[in-house]
Amino acid sequence: MKEKDEKNTFQIRTDLAIEAREMIGEKQENADVEPKGVQVETQEGECYTLTRVRIVNKAGSEAMGKPMGEYITIESQKLKENAVDCHEVIIQLLADQLRKLAQPKEKDCILVAGLGNWNITPDALGPKVISRILVTRHLQGCLPEEIEGTVRPVAAISPGVMGLTGVETGEIIKGLVEKVKPTLLIAIDALAARRSSRINATIQMSDTGVAPGAGVGNKRMELNQETLGIPVIAIGVPTVVDAATLVNDTMDRILASMISQTKEGSSFYQMLQDLEQEEKYTMITEILDPYTENMFVTPKEVDAVIDRLSNIIANGINIALHPGITMEDISKYS
Amino acid sequence: MKEKDEKNTFQIRTDLAIEAREMIGEKQENADVEPKGVQVETQEGECYTLTRVRIVNKAGSEAMGKPMGEYITIESQKLKENAVDCHEVIIQLLADQLRKLAQPKEKDCILVAGLGNWNITPDALGPKVISRILVTRHLQGCLPEEIEGTVRPVAAISPGVMGLTGVETGEIIKGLVEKVKPTLLIAIDALAARRSSRINATIQMSDTGVAPGAGVGNKRMELNQETLGIPVIAIGVPTVVDAATLVNDTMDRILASMISQTKEGSSFYQMLQDLEQEEKYTMITEILDPYTENMFVTPKEVDAVIDRLSNIIANGINIALHPGITMEDISKYS
Amino acid sequence: MKEKDEKNTFQIRTDLAIEAREMIGEKQENADVEPKGVQVETQEGECYTLTRVRIVNKAGSEAMGKPMGEYITIESQKLKENAVDCHEVIIQLLADQLRKLAQPKEKDCILVAGLGNWNITPDALGPKVISRILVTRHLQGCLPEEIEGTVRPVAAISPGVMGLTGVETGEIIKGLVEKVKPTLLIAIDALAARRSSRINATIQMSDTGVAPGAGVGNKRMELNQETLGIPVIAIGVPTVVDAATLVNDTMDRILASMISQTKEGSSFYQMLQDLEQEEKYTMITEILDPYTENMFVTPKEVDAVIDRLSNIIANGINIALHPGITMEDISKYS
Amino acid sequence: MKEKDEKNTFQIRTDLAIEAREMIGEKQENADVEPKGVQVETQEGECYTLTRVRIVNKAGSEAMGKPMGEYITIESQKLKENAVDCHEVIIQLLADQLRKLAQPKEKDCILVAGLGNWNITPDALGPKVISRILVTRHLQGCLPEEIEGTVRPVAAISPGVMGLTGVETGEIIKGLVEKVKPTLLIAIDALAARRSSRINATIQMSDTGVAPGAGVGNKRMELNQETLGIPVIAIGVPTVVDAATLVNDTMDRILASMISQTKEGSSFYQMLQDLEQEEKYTMITEILDPYTENMFVTPKEVDAVIDRLSNIIANGINIALHPGITMEDISKYS
Repeated sequence: MKEKDEKNTFQIRTDLAIEAREMIGEKQENADVEPKGVQVETQEGECYTLTRVRIVNKAGSEAMGKPMGEYITIESQKLKENAVDCHEVIIQLLADQLRKLAQPKEKDCILVAGLGNWNITPDALGPKVISRILVTRHLQGCLPEEIEGTVRPVAAISPGVMGLTGVETGEIIKGLVEKVKPTLLIAIDALAARRSSRINATIQMSDTGVAPGAGVGNKRMELNQETLGIPVIAIGVPTVVDAATLVNDTMDRILASMISQTKEGSSFYQMLQDLEQEEKYTMITEILDPYTENMFVTPKEVDAVIDRLSNIIANGINIALHPGITMEDISKYS
Repeated sequence: MKEKDEKNTFQIRTDLAIEAREMIGEKQENADVEPKGVQVETQEGECYTLTRVRIVNKAGSEAMGKPMGEYITIESQKLKENAVDCHEVIIQLLADQLRKLAQPKEKDCILVAGLGNWNITPDALGPKVISRILVTRHLQGCLPEEIEGTVRPVAAISPGVMGLTGVETGEIIKGLVEKVKPTLLIAIDALAARRSSRINATIQMSDTGVAPGAGVGNKRMELNQETLGIPVIAIGVPTVVDAATLVNDTMDRILASMISQTKEGSSFYQMLQDLEQEEKYTMITEILDPYTENMFVTPKEVDAVIDRLSNIIANGINIALHPGITMEDISKYS
Repeated sequence: MKEKDEKNTFQIRTDLAIEAREMIGEKQENADVEPKGVQVETQEGECYTLTRVRIVNKAGSEAMGKPMGEYITIESQKLKENAVDCHEVIIQLLADQLRKLAQPKEKDCILVAGLGNWNITPDALGPKVISRILVTRHLQGCLPEEIEGTVRPVAAISPGVMGLTGVETGEIIKGLVEKVKPTLLIAIDALAARRSSRINATIQMSDTGVAPGAGVGNKRMELNQETLGIPVIAIGVPTVVDAATLVNDTMDRILASMISQTKEGSSFYQMLQDLEQEEKYTMITEILDPYTENMFVTPKEVDAVIDRLSNIIANGINIALHPGITMEDISKYS
Repeated sequence: MKEKDEKNTFQIRTDLAIEAREMIGEKQENADVEPKGVQVETQEGECYTLTRVRIVNKAGSEAMGKPMGEYITIESQKLKENAVDCHEVIIQLLADQLRKLAQPKEKDCILVAGLGNWNITPDALGPKVISRILVTRHLQGCLPEEIEGTVRPVAAISPGVMGLTGVETGEIIKGLVEKVKPTLLIAIDALAARRSSRINATIQMSDTGVAPGAGVGNKRMELNQETLGIPVIAIGVPTVVDAATLVNDTMDRILASMISQTKEGSSFYQMLQDLEQEEKYTMITEILDPYTENMFVTPKEVDAVIDRLSNIIANGINIALHPGITMEDISKYS
């Protein structure tokens, strides 16, 4: 999870491209008009919705506050449940989309990195995925016959977080990339969302790399083609809502609901309209319990759900990377 | 943690007597007037505040929505930090208060129960305390010399939750009480608070037993003198805020702040004044993300803090129960 | 695992009926003649060997040092490996044998108990099985439609060990049995074997209950029809070899091998022949590193194997107990 | 822990210099004569024995089968127990010896690496130590006042094992060393000993680096001045005895004991004398249960003891590295 900037606590925090898109919509006359440089297409699956957001130029990147590239989002409330059939559908979907996005050449060596702090349950998604990745780079020529030739070299690591190691995650990854010389990095991370409904019910995959603390003034080294010299695919799941974001959103909805219940032109209506963002923030700082700033909102069963999600993502990656591995095999090697 | 009733999600949820007292104050002309049948005294320590709430009659019990008895609350932000010196002060304080409240006779056998679900981090406080209790009931006559005669018989159990065992926690405890025949039960549980500031910064101890789901229409068996036939001391720490409670509180504060900023007599002022609870709840149901209902607010570092808190409570209990055990010894046996 | 008696450390320790049978064979002229009152039949499966030992009278019970009853042993080296296909065969076999042995009536409530210390990896088998049991006793009438009517009431508990709770495992179980009133107890426990080859490669199931410390002078309360008033099925897996047992066995084999390599009638041959058990034990006490007494032998990968075994046993139990649950379902609910 | 070579299973396995020294003694006329190029001095502490073995030239290195350098061994049965007072003595001793051996310059940055597999209890010592190291490299200028200026930059990592990451431990460490540029590496690892009595009761520290698989034909990259370009201090604790080593040792002791009980000159005596190593090994291969090869001997309470040992070693390192940190502070920051 990314640290939030202390300066402006009340900016809405989301790592999801689809929510960035939503927020633009909220500020527009017509929510459905795509901002310039942004393309969005949606497709419904039997138990999921897939949304593809493409940011094709600088204008789109600025509007969205995210780097140019492709963002694929898979949404399904079933991700939270013990719904094995739907999970198998999503594992296969994830594998197909990942293969399309990464297009790894046969025999290419790939490094998978699980970002985040294994001591903080909702941040432990990355490390938990790593524990289920089929690691093969060290098995050159000594693989069990039934999978020999059907697997590519894969390495995997959980670099931890700076508070645990004293070292920038980026430095550890870069050092490893220089030794292992993979042709692709796949980075898994836990994300923050704006809407509780998306927590543990959304998987985002992008070819833009991971920008820890992007847009919140945090200077941490990004993991992308530029910094590492190889393409970086990021896969993430929102596991928390920032408590301050929840409060802020609640306030917006209360005001909106009041407005809708008020006669237009009435002084009350006017007064509500006049409430500027700035005033709203001052109001929140007055009323918000300061301790809430360091808190997040997460579902009671987060521990079990993170286990399930890490299994889905790890198996999706295992199938995508190893040509010979199919849905039937995963249980045997993952 | 106690399940909340689905019917009226928006009643403010708190297991703390001091917050129940606060809420009465908010509805009164004068917040400082104690409700009938309730006595409150506060004392400041070097790194903590101790509040003693006594509910002395039916009237007080109804006003507070809690059983008659004594509620001791220790508050300290240092509980969250790695502040060893302050923790030692609080361990000793906890031990003294517990001894006063329980007044166990020498050699009496005491059962300690850690309630809650060990698979859900903020609910795992009880089981974690149990893992640090100095258990001695089975050591009759075979204790290491240096502690022989200085310890009383103590048994400890983590009964789990109904979802894990299929059995009411109360049934398991009652069955065990009938076999072990202790003269006192000490039950540790994770609680819900209304204020984020109190999360992991408050320890409540009471002689009223534990009433799972009290006041939220939940029919679970209570653990108290009546049901078990022995006195029950409850020790708890609020580890979460109910997300709906946070939203509801935020709304109240927003309205209060708007009122304070509005000219008295203005139609806006009137309108705000007229907002009935009921309307407010309807408004919230309209605006509240349904998924938020099943979520809670907890600090990022909850895993580490729960470890620290369970250590403090376990050591407080170890010192209180074993006459020969002092602060110096605890590290050796806990 | 059962404590061993300090008096005679060097008696060979095994909890397996098939090894008790072997040891009788070693002392007989003809190893293949069954002792009186003991019936043994063996059947080969596609990836396992099943051995059924029946002790039908007192004579057999004394000869074997085990209570009268039926002991079913499933042996397969594949149990240690990640061999999903064979595991599914054994899960089904386990379920069939358990149903035959227990013959539970429809709707009967059954209690499953996971014995052992969850803090000691090779002793944590029982508690790990419990974490995977489909617990349903508390769901009367509120089961998901797809399984309603297909499941029986099942409760599950891990009582811990006396060192953790201060209470006899038997007391905890008896107290619970009196509350829950099940018609059958299924107890899972980690066992000790004599042969390294059987570690984590053997599942023993019997209708004789569990006798902790049986035959090693330990007075712990047994779990059986007599003590609990209901039938008790025990399921166990040997996870360790007692280090002293390994040393003792090694010595016997060395002597045997020397004898076989020695000219009959030679003084050396005579001398070896004359070595009495007693002398052997004295010799061992002289040469055995005393620290070895408290040690056990276990495979490096014990942590992963125990996970796998607990999954196999839990699923076998889930299928045996819930008429509507099949191999296809288990992954969904276990 | 180091993999053992499949070729010659029965060579005695030990990672301890003092045991290498012992084995030379056993083959000599006079056990007390030091081999050429090896200096040994011993000193008794209040609750420990410290042995310093110096290998000063090639001859010594070959005789011992270990690289030239200094090996400091701290032995205390109290290390296994919950003996806080003795542990504090050993923590301070460890800190003093480590400072002498490493002589780190003020402000030098130091990297601590915890080798081993965190999924295998007796191999998890290194990773557990890392979780307790006071990591400060990332806190330049933002340290809490009370420790600012009293701590040096320290980074820490648990690189895992090749089976988990697909990457050589040495490659990961080398990559990190090139980024972090420390002036010293401290590597913690679990070891194998020959004598059960030394398990979890011995700490070895040396300035010779870590040579995974040294002397067992294993080609893994060593961690030392030569491979990393910085000095490497290795700290290890034997947590297992190789089961085959235990069997082999037992056999030697049995034969020795038989010899001692036999009339010199008798044919039996002669025969025992004539038993060559080679024959012994053949005999063992005949009698040894093959499954024993992959097993190790470890104490029942290994999980708890490893926790305690990792705390002792981590605190010793914290005090040695941070000039301002004393015994009193450790509990606060470790």
